[in-house]
Amino acid sequence: MRKNKKKQKQNQPKEFLPAIRGLEVKIYLRNGEEIKGEILSISTYEIIVKTKEGKDLLIFKHAIDFIDYFQKT
Amino acid sequence: MRKNKKKQKQNQPKEFLPAIRGLEVKIYLRNGEEIKGEILSISTYEIIVKTKEGKDLLIFKHAIDFIDYFQKT
Amino acid sequence: MRKNKKKQKQNQPKEFLPAIRGLEVKIYLRNGEEIKGEILSISTYEIIVKTKEGKDLLIFKHAIDFIDYFQKT
Amino acid sequence: MRKNKKKQKQNQPKEFLPAIRGLEVKIYLRNGEEIKGEILSISTYEIIVKTKEGKDLLIFKHAIDFIDYFQKT
Amino acid sequence: MRKNKKKQKQNQPKEFLPAIRGLEVKIYLRNGEEIKGEILSISTYEIIVKTKEGKDLLIFKHAIDFIDYFQKT
Amino acid sequence: MRKNKKKQKQNQPKEFLPAIRGLEVKIYLRNGEEIKGEILSISTYEIIVKTKEGKDLLIFKHAIDFIDYFQKT
Repeated sequence: MRKNKKKQKQNQPKEFLPAIRGLEVKIYLRNGEEIKGEILSISTYEIIVKTKEGKDLLIFKHAIDFIDYFQKT
Repeated sequence: MRKNKKKQKQNQPKEFLPAIRGLEVKIYLRNGEEIKGEILSISTYEIIVKTKEGKDLLIFKHAIDFIDYFQKT
Repeated sequence: MRKNKKKQKQNQPKEFLPAIRGLEVKIYLRNGEEIKGEILSISTYEIIVKTKEGKDLLIFKHAIDFIDYFQKT
Repeated sequence: MRKNKKKQKQNQPKEFLPAIRGLEVKIYLRNGEEIKGEILSISTYEIIVKTKEGKDLLIFKHAIDFIDYFQKT
Repeated sequence: MRKNKKKQKQNQPKEFLPAIRGLEVKIYLRNGEEIKGEILSISTYEIIVKTKEGKDLLIFKHAIDFIDYFQKT
Repeated sequence: MRKNKKKQKQNQPKEFLPAIRGLEVKIYLRNGEEIKGEILSISTYEIIVKTKEGKDLLIFKHAIDFIDYFQKT
């Protein structure tokens, strides 16, 4: 495992979430729930998601395990 | 996934919680509990919630998975 | 969801825990335990609680889900 | 809930763990385990504990829920 | 346990994830799921993984327990 | 509980992990798994472990509950 990773690190983007805003997403939470919808907005520690059922939810990033994203169809 | 996300990031709001203060909320905690009430105040790591039963609770943000919010009716 | 939340944020208190020090509390932990007692002191990441049984406990804030607090009777 | 908590905050100690170093402790972990022993040393995110069985363990603070402490007998 | 660890610390690399980008990985999540694929990109708190099934997933680092990595075959 | 802990704190080492690098370890993870091996290297949030079976694993520190360590025999 090489040690001069500084350069790679400096090119690291800050956050991928803004790149999937507006796409169809399936959000897997730490409690086992899966939320389908669209990411409307993003703050430092939270996101606002419009669910398929038309509800807005404030979700904390710390509660998200991973996100599956799709081009809208 | 494009890399120049810096601009988007700079426009990111700090926190959405203040925008739902005073609304009717349903808070989903990491322990599976759901707390219905109203967010009275917000600190860096905590919120104070008045529950439907009229109790004030100090809830740590780290314990919250997501929040459903409604216009008061 | 409006974006100029900076002002609201600047008025945000740092922490609510000091305001409930000395009150009767019921602390709900992430492991499901409930600890009844009184908050004696507060550090950056911990609190010292005197339980109803007269024991002092050092509790990490990260382990607390929420706190119910009461005026002493 | 009053808002001028700044002064209280400034008097807040950084960490209570050093004050219970050397005492007999019972450490309750997030996985349900209880470790009996004595805190030997403390770093930013870890502690070294000598267990009752004479083993040294490196425990991460993030894994600790709370600590019961006793004067050695 | 010696105390002058400052030098060792200064030589510490920031992050090992960039060194396994492009390799075949098996990611073990806190929810018990195992995701097989390849790490495509890395941000401060997230990674993008192309799964064996050809799906891109945004995974939060906080949800990862450990990663098994292999030279591609 | 005395309040002038500043001095103790300043003498606190940053991290104990480097002191057990190279020793035989048993790592207890938050998911209940136990990994036996040797810590090869340490970054800010991760460690690389060579398991007894000869596999290298990237383990996130946040997933570790505690580590039992032994002099190699």
